[in-house]
Amino acid sequence: MRLKITIQYDGTDLSGWQSQPGESTVQGCLETAFEAFGCGRVVVHGAGRTDAGVHALGQVAHVDIDKVLEPATWIRALNVKLPVDIRVLRVEQVTEAFQARRSATGKVYHYRAWTSAVVSPFERRFVAHAPYPHDLDRMRVAAEALVGLHEFDAFTVADRDTLTTRRNLRRLDIDVHGDELRIEAEANGFLRSMVRTIAGTLLAVGDGRMSVDQVLEALATKRRELAGPTAPARGLTLVRVDY
Amino acid sequence: MRLKITIQYDGTDLSGWQSQPGESTVQGCLETAFEAFGCGRVVVHGAGRTDAGVHALGQVAHVDIDKVLEPATWIRALNVKLPVDIRVLRVEQVTEAFQARRSATGKVYHYRAWTSAVVSPFERRFVAHAPYPHDLDRMRVAAEALVGLHEFDAFTVADRDTLTTRRNLRRLDIDVHGDELRIEAEANGFLRSMVRTIAGTLLAVGDGRMSVDQVLEALATKRRELAGPTAPARGLTLVRVDY
Repeated sequence: MRLKITIQYDGTDLSGWQSQPGESTVQGCLETAFEAFGCGRVVVHGAGRTDAGVHALGQVAHVDIDKVLEPATWIRALNVKLPVDIRVLRVEQVTEAFQARRSATGKVYHYRAWTSAVVSPFERRFVAHAPYPHDLDRMRVAAEALVGLHEFDAFTVADRDTLTTRRNLRRLDIDVHGDELRIEAEANGFLRSMVRTIAGTLLAVGDGRMSVDQVLEALATKRRELAGPTAPARGLTLVRVDY
Repeated sequence: MRLKITIQYDGTDLSGWQSQPGESTVQGCLETAFEAFGCGRVVVHGAGRTDAGVHALGQVAHVDIDKVLEPATWIRALNVKLPVDIRVLRVEQVTEAFQARRSATGKVYHYRAWTSAVVSPFERRFVAHAPYPHDLDRMRVAAEALVGLHEFDAFTVADRDTLTTRRNLRRLDIDVHGDELRIEAEANGFLRSMVRTIAGTLLAVGDGRMSVDQVLEALATKRRELAGPTAPARGLTLVRVDY
């Protein structure tokens, strides 16, 4: 039977989603956990491969399993085998038509930057540090220009698995919560490093290193070197995958 | 000159407040940081000695220093030398009359328990796990009985530094924030392990292991073995010291 699983993780000490020999990865830990219950060799298919250091509040994966257990039993059993920085939140039985990546209709990411001088020890694992004044109005003008259907070549890295760089960026909101500047991005899908490059670009616009015109030029010319830097992985969280 | 410093820390990987040879402690790290700036041998006096694993949003300490620097310069300089799980938030010059422990008029602690089956990887360092239904009304009746001026012998461990076990517990609130049950305790001062023992007792009342009458009996007879268990350090945070 096919299971849809929803997973949270603190990516700080993990080498990202994708299995790699000798590394602690989310996919690798999940596959090992399933195999510990006599499921044989399984492959856990994620909705997206988050990079090393990136977190998830609601990553989704699917897996085909012979063993029949209640969802609540799976949740307990898997969490016993998983490291504490990875937690299975939900397990649901789905039909073979469900594929974590291909069935997804949208994703939401948050990029969190800490703007005051001293980073909270409680949030330090989940935020980037950007202790500068930010012009939110300028950032929002740049964000508005990125929203919509575009070829985001300037905001990604070369990836031979990608057939098209066209994505529909549905929402790109910038809000302040106390010492935190939060960028919320929603799209039908994201290219590799896309949220981190958009975040790095918007933060550069915010603190005056880049102009809004430079962002427009990067988008129009599709030249990666015209966009801003890739913001650090630690500030990025995959919040939700929609189906 | 005497400095008052306000400190935050994630206590997970620390061996508590008090300096111990070969251990990473808050006091030890602060003293090492001051000494790195040529302050000679200094002693940092804390408002209270938090146990290993306990966190602080607003611990306070004082220290006597010959060196004259601007507060903002001290904050930057100390934070460069400190591990990322300890942060100096504020530095203020005070008179010799100020003593972090003796001048304190009150303290606030929060005890956080996660009540759903799966602990969030983002909160796991800062919460205890109590995945049971809790009767908040019963907990509040027991809490109300503990509020006021009492000798809290049943809610502490033997400590030869303590002259009296009498404390004025001004407030003991129980609230639910999503999956989190939070116990907020405010007093003129707390005995060793007092908040953790009160938290362990209230959680035991909440899930039916103890009755409200047993709490009253523990308080009246001052017998430690009649109170509940000491709740784990990880759930405890020193929120504030008042002067």
